[in-house]
This record gives sequence, structure tokens and C-alpha cells, in this order.
Amino acid sequence: MAGNALGESFRFTTWGESHGPAIGCVIDGVPPRVPLKESDLQGWLNARKPGQSRFTTQRQEADEVKILSGVFEGVTTGTPVSLVIENTDQRSKDYSDIKDKFRPGHADYTYWTKYGIRDYRGGGRSSARETAMRVAAGGVARKVLDHILQESVSIKGALVQMGPHHIDREKWDWAETGNNPFWCPDAAAAADWADILDAARKSGSSLGAVVEVVASGVPAGLGEPVYDKLDADLAKAMMSINAVKGVEIGAGFASAAFSGEENADEMRMDGNRIAFSSNQAGGVLGGISSGQDVVVRFAVKPTSSILSPRKTVDIFGKDTEIFTKGRHDPCVGIRAVPVGEAMMAVVLADHLLRNRAQCG
Amino acid sequence: MAGNALGESFRFTTWGESHGPAIGCVIDGVPPRVPLKESDLQGWLNARKPGQSRFTTQRQEADEVKILSGVFEGVTTGTPVSLVIENTDQRSKDYSDIKDKFRPGHADYTYWTKYGIRDYRGGGRSSARETAMRVAAGGVARKVLDHILQESVSIKGALVQMGPHHIDREKWDWAETGNNPFWCPDAAAAADWADILDAARKSGSSLGAVVEVVASGVPAGLGEPVYDKLDADLAKAMMSINAVKGVEIGAGFASAAFSGEENADEMRMDGNRIAFSSNQAGGVLGGISSGQDVVVRFAVKPTSSILSPRKTVDIFGKDTEIFTKGRHDPCVGIRAVPVGEAMMAVVLADHLLRNRAQCG
Amino acid sequence: MAGNALGESFRFTTWGESHGPAIGCVIDGVPPRVPLKESDLQGWLNARKPGQSRFTTQRQEADEVKILSGVFEGVTTGTPVSLVIENTDQRSKDYSDIKDKFRPGHADYTYWTKYGIRDYRGGGRSSARETAMRVAAGGVARKVLDHILQESVSIKGALVQMGPHHIDREKWDWAETGNNPFWCPDAAAAADWADILDAARKSGSSLGAVVEVVASGVPAGLGEPVYDKLDADLAKAMMSINAVKGVEIGAGFASAAFSGEENADEMRMDGNRIAFSSNQAGGVLGGISSGQDVVVRFAVKPTSSILSPRKTVDIFGKDTEIFTKGRHDPCVGIRAVPVGEAMMAVVLADHLLRNRAQCG
Amino acid sequence: MAGNALGESFRFTTWGESHGPAIGCVIDGVPPRVPLKESDLQGWLNARKPGQSRFTTQRQEADEVKILSGVFEGVTTGTPVSLVIENTDQRSKDYSDIKDKFRPGHADYTYWTKYGIRDYRGGGRSSARETAMRVAAGGVARKVLDHILQESVSIKGALVQMGPHHIDREKWDWAETGNNPFWCPDAAAAADWADILDAARKSGSSLGAVVEVVASGVPAGLGEPVYDKLDADLAKAMMSINAVKGVEIGAGFASAAFSGEENADEMRMDGNRIAFSSNQAGGVLGGISSGQDVVVRFAVKPTSSILSPRKTVDIFGKDTEIFTKGRHDPCVGIRAVPVGEAMMAVVLADHLLRNRAQCG
Repeated sequence: MAGNALGESFRFTTWGESHGPAIGCVIDGVPPRVPLKESDLQGWLNARKPGQSRFTTQRQEADEVKILSGVFEGVTTGTPVSLVIENTDQRSKDYSDIKDKFRPGHADYTYWTKYGIRDYRGGGRSSARETAMRVAAGGVARKVLDHILQESVSIKGALVQMGPHHIDREKWDWAETGNNPFWCPDAAAAADWADILDAARKSGSSLGAVVEVVASGVPAGLGEPVYDKLDADLAKAMMSINAVKGVEIGAGFASAAFSGEENADEMRMDGNRIAFSSNQAGGVLGGISSGQDVVVRFAVKPTSSILSPRKTVDIFGKDTEIFTKGRHDPCVGIRAVPVGEAMMAVVLADHLLRNRAQCG
Repeated sequence: MAGNALGESFRFTTWGESHGPAIGCVIDGVPPRVPLKESDLQGWLNARKPGQSRFTTQRQEADEVKILSGVFEGVTTGTPVSLVIENTDQRSKDYSDIKDKFRPGHADYTYWTKYGIRDYRGGGRSSARETAMRVAAGGVARKVLDHILQESVSIKGALVQMGPHHIDREKWDWAETGNNPFWCPDAAAAADWADILDAARKSGSSLGAVVEVVASGVPAGLGEPVYDKLDADLAKAMMSINAVKGVEIGAGFASAAFSGEENADEMRMDGNRIAFSSNQAGGVLGGISSGQDVVVRFAVKPTSSILSPRKTVDIFGKDTEIFTKGRHDPCVGIRAVPVGEAMMAVVLADHLLRNRAQCG
Repeated sequence: MAGNALGESFRFTTWGESHGPAIGCVIDGVPPRVPLKESDLQGWLNARKPGQSRFTTQRQEADEVKILSGVFEGVTTGTPVSLVIENTDQRSKDYSDIKDKFRPGHADYTYWTKYGIRDYRGGGRSSARETAMRVAAGGVARKVLDHILQESVSIKGALVQMGPHHIDREKWDWAETGNNPFWCPDAAAAADWADILDAARKSGSSLGAVVEVVASGVPAGLGEPVYDKLDADLAKAMMSINAVKGVEIGAGFASAAFSGEENADEMRMDGNRIAFSSNQAGGVLGGISSGQDVVVRFAVKPTSSILSPRKTVDIFGKDTEIFTKGRHDPCVGIRAVPVGEAMMAVVLADHLLRNRAQCG
Repeated sequence: MAGNALGESFRFTTWGESHGPAIGCVIDGVPPRVPLKESDLQGWLNARKPGQSRFTTQRQEADEVKILSGVFEGVTTGTPVSLVIENTDQRSKDYSDIKDKFRPGHADYTYWTKYGIRDYRGGGRSSARETAMRVAAGGVARKVLDHILQESVSIKGALVQMGPHHIDREKWDWAETGNNPFWCPDAAAAADWADILDAARKSGSSLGAVVEVVASGVPAGLGEPVYDKLDADLAKAMMSINAVKGVEIGAGFASAAFSGEENADEMRMDGNRIAFSSNQAGGVLGGISSGQDVVVRFAVKPTSSILSPRKTVDIFGKDTEIFTKGRHDPCVGIRAVPVGEAMMAVVLADHLLRNRAQCG
């Protein structure tokens, strides 16, 4: 089957192109009697919305979400929830400079090769605009988690690296993520990053980034080994976000350099609960949540749209050059933070429901 | 649904426990008229098989695979291919020392919590023994790729890091991977690693590793955006392998530190073909293969079974200690190399068939 | 997973309630470069639309379909096709007489029991209004079949029984189905049925019916044994239509009374093609299309909404009575004809694409 | 995807050919801690087994089932349950008379056309031998239903028509079904049928049949509208059985001839429970179980293998004739009774688990 859906039990299918009349998604499997209204979703969408600071694309979209089905008298009914956002700022610009050229690092060439046709307006389906519906679906997933788990789960994201610049983990303060336009948990780093990104933006360049998403309060037992492990599904969900090139859980790639002794998360009783000495595992053992924080990081490549001319080819098989004027994110990793949180929410909601099927 | 299957069009379901009578898999969707015999699979299984050197577990398994269905007169018929391997060395040891304790870093605690029961003999279903069937399915997938794509695709894997020790990429020689017990593409590094791993093994410790798998000759156009992207499905497949904690495509996490200029894979015509100036993307653009080499790396944590006693708890909620005597891999990353190759093969075969459904 | 989608490779998910703001569907897997515009779908929707004669419900709906994604410059792009129809005649009547009562023969009681909530306005999700999106999806499926099979496939439906009144198969004339409001292939029977149904309608009663759908020009080879047989998937698709209580293929239930000799469809060569002496099988052998006409019939129960008071219970567990005033179809079987055709189209399109995955 | 699996949450995949070394199935999604042993399954298999009377094929198969995984210390562990039956009586006869000819009414021609190859030995994959694994899976499904629903569900089947001969419903006695080789609920009819079928058998002819399966004690709320309705999935499951040509629920095709008044199943309170005045609906309303008996009937065509020569063609495109000597069922409907029961069990188990995912 084609690949525009994610999840089994909490399954959402997104649709829409960057410059079509609207984008939307349908969520099948939302449990009944979950309180849900449009304003529950709008806050998350506003967090991802373009044009919020000078550090993101200046496209202006209200991103106003409408619920078209599945909710009656303020609660879900168990039928599909259909969400739609109208596109309002599809600038009717002239696309003649890119319609026949393949932008390096973009999906232009591969969509053309696969489908024999592509909607070149703003990247069409391959645009990061699609991620708005991920965030909307994530908002519904959070309501499902809250409803079933009585608000035990908290999902937070942060930008932990911009270009080559890491944050200092000693200075991590979750509260700071709301105080700067980067979701950076360290105020000093955020100040530096503002200068760095301004320079990149003004020169028409771009920067990569690393995002970390942490879910606390996840009950033990979620994940379906041996292929639909919780970490495997998180890896897929994060890797499916535009521009993501790597995903890791817990200690991740660093664990390759560890000895078995360094890597062991020892266990002990803490009253009636099991406690762990560390969380190298990132909250997942054997593909199943352990009750510790679920910790995921993913790498976002620098935006491929840059001002410096790049060599490329066109659909006629001729060598040519291309460069990008116009509205773009100098660091797409920033807006990937709320998207990553949303993907965490949908994967957890899906596995929560799946676990109920088999394990009651 | 439960999670013991992978793939849509080339879909395999594995079954079996470490100490059950047998392990096996069923592959649904194998195209008809593909030449297939047991010896096509046995070579790959022998590469993964335990006990091949002093650096892997000393469990002795013939891992002799039998084809029970789906093949008639030497070719596949389009019906399910059932593969079975009998377990022969399920050492009937006394499990009383671990049956009630949760081994740190293992799936003991999470299986117990999720299912309320666990087969503690050798890890049961969570044992790496399951990966033998991944390799067998990968062998069938290679035959499918060869049959449809006329042997254009070549899949190779290597160990590129053991513990903190990286290989030197300048000295990479694929031919070397067959000359040492580590699949290391650098003879000098392999010699060093032998000493390092011997030391770890003798002290009852263990080491992590990084595996790289490269597929050459993959046609452009494979991958189903926006959720079943080729890289997303590869990330899931690799992350589902036992002990894997991170996955990256192409430049991966390094791309986060790049500028847009550094990251751009420029394009030009090379005769009638499109050529790229570099492969930071790892052969995937917008979730679809570009025709470049598909490059995946994954991090494997150090084996959790070590000789040093670790603190843990038991099923009765009491604090206790545990350590591991007996047969174990000091670096499970080694045997993950053929498993990673197999996962590449099954994901490519699946996407090749899926692409035919929609795009003909 | 929840059940609001049908198909694997041509997969559509419908959403929307009878009295919500809109209904819609998303189709994932539409091949690229298929010509598609709204007017391709509108004709089929008009055929199903209520209020076309005095024999169907007098609800007035324009049923104007909009394509919101997946089409660019007149052809499909391989991305999801989103279709929406606004509801315009959700009469804002007082539902106080039915909101707490379970209408016999309707889904009121079972939705209430399953979900603990129901949208009682016009039946909510269980309304036959949902079938408009089946017809829209069927319209897309026909375009896919036409595009790939070069217009070889023709799908036609007819009402072959109303209440206890059968048509005479000797007088079957497909051209007549467009000349009467019943899709009846026999003009004389249609005239009789008009009188019969007028009487039922005026007395507030209702009648059942049998619908036959025939697809000609279907290539041999479609169907995925042994569970996703073509006839099994047709049975599911037809049985999923509101009010359907039975499905048969070819000779169907009559075949139970046959001897092996009577039932055999003998084969012979007719030039280069294989010809059959009869079509008791209804075009499917071993779950795979044979190239003969695919023939399906399904039984539609009489509308449960009738004027005579019926005993029932309410949500408070009290005995009560209910009867139906207002707009209803006296024979829902009539409008099931275009719905049955649409289900034939979507199942054939799905199996056409699925067959390409495995068999090329 | 290919079609050798059924179910979502209780999902089983069967494999194997009539004359291969073995047949088997893997069930993914079995809940943990369900008591299960081989003897729980063997009784159902013995009921379906060939050679039990002179009225079924004389092939001798022990049909001894082995559990290879998923059970530990007498209960399921939540991991896949693998079941295998060795084929023992694959008579090594000469197939030269049928290997190049397409038997009318069989799947020979369509498998050949679809796959370009077929295993002609005993029908290969299209043989009714595959149904042994349906019965085995059904046995596991019954244990799951018993475990979760505390043995409330009872599933029984009967042959209600042989050739043109119906039973008298007034004389229905479930206890009789075990007293004759036909699963006939009327002793007098069974005696008549013995004579009728003896005559057909001796003349090398065959007879069709109708099977009825009734599930009592099914809780209200099972079924996933609007496509995976309980009745839609039952229709698919039954239609997927070899030789089935029609399926109906409750009143089925007879309901087409009813008025709305005749068809209404009125409701009333019976103490705290809802009671119905009749069961025309067959226990399903709006695709969801109502708590009434779930009643399904299906028509089985007469065995296509008959002694009278039939015209056919061969793989070389030549006209020829064929007739069947050897072992065959004169009325395959008989052995379809336990298969129909098994399909009821697997569909109910699947929907029971699916309902838990969404509705808790």
C-alpha cells in the first residue's frame, strides 16, 4: 500500500500539498468519549506555525484547524476524526525558475522519477507543510493519552544542537524552552544561537540541528516485539519527518563506545516501585517501555534551500544551476521540535491502544 | 495487531523461542518463478551462526534451514514460503539462578510486566536467536531482488566501530571484511580489535559497536512517502534488531553540524545518467531512493550479559544481584552485521514490490 | 485497528456523519498520471443522490464533490486524493423523540453499547449517507481501471428483485436500467414495481430487494488466495453496505442444489482465447478472476424506518414504542445499486494493483 | 500484500501445499496466559479430518498437530503460536494425466494464469487441505474466547441442505449433529441423505450443500463499522473457504422478500437485559454484535471432481477432456462444517481483541 498513514490502532492518514486548497488528516481508532475541541489542537499548531520569529520561514499561515467529524457534544464518538486546515498563503508566484529543475537535497528528482509527475509548487506533497497535520494528529493523541492514562504522560522537546553547537547538559532547564525561539533549554546557548543563525540567514546559508524529545510517565509494557518495538516505531516516525537523517534512543550512538558495565541500568526497589540507577536504555528494553523516561533524539540536516548557486540538472537531462530566493527556514530543525513531540504522542497513543488489544 | 511481522508486499512473520523446539518464518508475497533452494539461504545463515570464532557465543547450532512450502521444482510458486530451523543446542541447564530475576539491560522485566509471564530459558522470544530467521528471510529477499532487478543490487555490511575504536575510512577495503572475524574492512584495525575483544572477553566484560550496511545498484524510485519512506522503514528495521540504539542514513548525525552548502549533493549529467557530487543523503531523497548507494549505520550497545555482578530486583519485588556465567557474545555487534544486511534486503524487496503496485 | 478503511493498495478511508458539516474520504495508492476531475465523479454521485424520484428519501443534497489534493494539472500525482462533500440539508429538526430510544433494526443500540455514546442525528455515522463517499471512491477506482486496462472493464448494476417480486431473466435488457427509477432491467417489471412501491410508501411500510452487479472485461489473475480471494473481498465489500444481509457469486446459493455435472463450467478454445460453456462460477475460480464476467448479487433488507409503531427500549432501560415519520427510502435497495457498482470498482482496482506488486 | 493471512489483532497466516512435506500456520496476537495444549486442538482437527466415513475422501491423514512456539508451561506467552501438521499420505501417484490440463471448476487455470506456474499435485495450495490449518487456528481462537469471556461463547455448525434437500427446521436438534456423518440436525433427514449421497458417490457425481453456523453468548459490541463490520468480516471469512459461493446473515436473502414490519426485531426489557422478539438480523446491527445469536449460512458448490468426462483445455491451448478418478469428497459441504465453525471462532476472537484496543 502507499505510505500516507501511520499507526495501527491509532491510525492517521494525512493528505494535501503545499499549494493546494487545504491539507488535512483522518484519524481512525480514536477511542470514544475523549473530550476534544479545536482549541485543544490549535495551541500545538501555533507552536509549529511558520512566521513566528525571524528564524523561520515568513510564509504566513493561520493554520486554523477544523474538526469535521468524529466529535459530538464535545467528546469523540469512536468514529473517524477528520481535521482540515485551509491553505491561505499559497503565494501565486511564478514557478518557472524551478518547475523544470531538480533542487539538490530536495525530493524533486525522486518524485519525478517515481511518479513521472510532480507538483512543483512549493514542493507539493514533499513540503514540510505536511507536518502541520502531524502536529494536529499529535494533539489528538495527547488527549487520548490524557484520557486513558489520567494525564500521567508529559511530552517535551528541545533543540540540543544547532550546527556544530551543543548545549551544556548541566545547564538544562526545561522552562527555558518556552523563552526563546529555538526551544533551547539553555538561555545562554539560545542567545549565542540567535547570532549564529542571524548570520547564516543573512548570508543565505542554513544550519542543521539535533532535537531531543522526552516522554515522562509512560507506563511499562508498551511496544510489540519483535518488529513493532516501541523504539523501532519511534525511529520510523522520527525518520519520516522531513530532513531527518538519524535517530537514537537513550544513549544512542554513544552506547557503542561503552563497556557493558557502563551501559548497565541497574535496578532496585524504591518502595513498591522499581527504580533504575541510570537510563542509558532511554526507557525501552527489548522494544517495550520500562516505565523510565522515553528519550529520543534525531538529527535534522540543514535546509537544502540556500542562496549559493548549486549545480543540478533539469527534467530534459541538461546541466544547469539553481539557487533559492524567497521564504525558507534557515534551520528547519527549530520547527521540527513540535513535530517530534507530536510523533512521540502518536506512537505512544498507538502502542497504548495496541497493547490493550493483546494484553487487555 | 501484535508485532511479529515486517513488510507489506514482501511480508515475513517470524516465530520461535531460544529454547523451543524450532524457530521459523513465513514469507507472504514472494513473487512466483524465483529460483530458490535451501543452499541459497544456508550461506547467509552460516555467516550469522554462533560459534564461528572465539569472539561469539559458543552455543553450537547447525542452523540448517528447511523450506517447507512455496517452492515447486526449484522455483517459487507465489504461495507462502515457510522456513524452519530446528534448535539443537538448547542446553538443558538449570535456570534457577535467573528465572526469578530481571537481568539489567535485558527484556526480562518488560516482558514480565507486559505479558505477566516470560519464557526465561535463554531469553525466550527476546533472544538474538530470532535474528537467524531475519537472515533466512533476507536470503529470500536477495533472490527476489536478483530475479527482478537482474542482479543489479549488491548489499554489503561492515563493522566500522568497536567500543570507542573507529576504523580509518581512508583504508576501507570491502574485500577485507571476509578475512577477519569482525567483518572489519581494515586489516590493521581488525588485528587491534582481536586483542581488545580478547581482553574484554577474558574479563567478562563486553563492548558496543557500529555497523554500516551499503546497498549498491538500487533503482531510483523506491520508498512510499510520507510515512513509509525508504529511510523511515530502514530505521525501523535496523532499530528492531536486538541491542540497536541508533540508526542513521548517509551523513546521519554529522549532517546536523553541516551548513547547507556542505550538505548539498550537487547533480550533473554523466552521459545519460544523473550523477551526484557526493552522497550525504545516503541514497534517499524525500524518502525515495535516488539511485545512489543506500547507506545505513546503526549502533549496537554492549552485551548486557557480563560477569560483574549487577544490582537488580526479582519478580517478588526484592533487591538482589545477578551476573552472567556461560555462553555469550562479548560484542553482539559482530553478528549484527549479517543481520543488518538481511534487513536491508527485506526492506528493499518490500519497497520494490510496493512500488510496482502503485507505479507499475 | 478501527474499520473505516477498505483495500490495501487502493485504500480509501471514509469519514463523516449524516448531520455533521461534511463527509469525505481519502484514497491512498491512486497510481500517478490518471486523468481525474470532479465531473468524472459527479455523475456517479448524482445516480445515488437522494430525492431523485418519489421512491427515495426526500432529503435534498447537492452532493457536490470537491477534490482537495492529489491532482495536479488534471492528472493524479500518486499522492493521496482527498474528496469532500458538504452536508447542506441537515434539517435542524427536533430529535427528542428518538435521541433516547433504540430504533429496531437500526444501529442505535449497538453503537450505544459499543461506544457508550452515539450521534443520534440522522443515524450519525451509521447513516446510509456514508455511501456517498463509497460512490465517489468508486468513481476514482473506475478511472484507475480505465487508465491501466485501457477501458476494458465495464461495471453495471441492476435491481433484480423488489420485495418478493423477481424479474424475468429472459427479458433482461441492460439499456432499460436507465429508463426507470429502480435500475430495473425489465420495463414491464419496473411498471409493476412502481405501483407496488407506491402502495408501500403510502402505507408507511418498506420493501427489501436484491441487487446484481456485473463486471465485464476483467482480466484473469486478480485475487489473492487463500484469504483475500477476489470473491471473499467482494463479499466483504458488499456485506459492508448498509442493510445488506447476503452476498452470492455466480450461481450462489442455487449451486448448493446442483450436481457436479450441472455446476461444471466447461472450457474450450475459441481461437486463441479460452471460452467457457457457462458461468456458474461467476467469474472467479479458486479466488482468482478467470476472465469471465464477475457476477455478484446481494440482498438488501427492507428499510427499518416504518410508520407502524414498534416495541423497543430506551437508554434508561425502559420499554417504549417508536415509529418513523419523515424522510426515508421505502426501498433502500434502489439506491444500493450505484453503491454496489462502486464497491465492485474499488475491489477490482485494489486487486489490480495488488496483483502488480507480486506478479508484476 | 499477498493474501495468506486473516485478522488484525488475532492474525493467522497459513502456509503449505497439499503434497508438500507439511502444512502450518502462525498466529500473531494470541493474548498471554491462555491455557493451550495440542490436545485442545486435536479434537477439532479430527472432526474435519478426511477418511472418517465413506462420505468423505479416503485420503488418510493423521492430522496430528504440533505446537512449536508461543506456549510455555502450558499457557501462551503472548509470542507467536506456530502450528504444524506433517503431510503423511501424499500418494506418490502419477500426475501426468492432469499436470497439463485445467480441471473445470478448479483453480488450475487461474493459478496458472496469475502465477505462470502451479503445483499440480493434489491442487497444491488451492487444495482443501489448507482448511486443516483454519481448524487448528479456530481451536486456538476458541481457547482465547473461553479465556477472556469465561466460556460464555458456544459455536455450533450444521449441514442444513444437501443438494436440493433441506432439513425441516421444526425438527432441528443440535444433539443429532454428532450422531451422523453429515452434521445434520435432523436424524430422519440424515438417513435420507445417506442414501442420496451413496447414489451420487457410486455414480461418480457430487452434490452441493448449505452450512449454518451459530454462535451463542457473543457479547454485544463486537464489529468495527463501517468496513470491518462483524458481518462483513464473517462474509469474507466464509467466502474464502474452498467452494463457497454465497454467504448470508440471519434472514439473509429471505429478508429481501420481507416487509419492514416482518423484518423488525422488536426489543423489550427482560429483567435487566434487552430481549428481542425475533432474530432476522442474525445477531448483527449496523455491523456490531447485538448480543443475540450470530447466525451465518453459506452455500458450498458440488465438488468439481466428478467421473463424467468434461471438456477442457490444456496449458498448450488445445481442447481436451478430463475426468476424475481417485479419492474425492462427493459432498465437500460436509467437511466444511467444522471449517465454518473455525472461521466463526477466528473472526469473533479477532473482533473481541480489536474492540479492546479502541473501546477498552
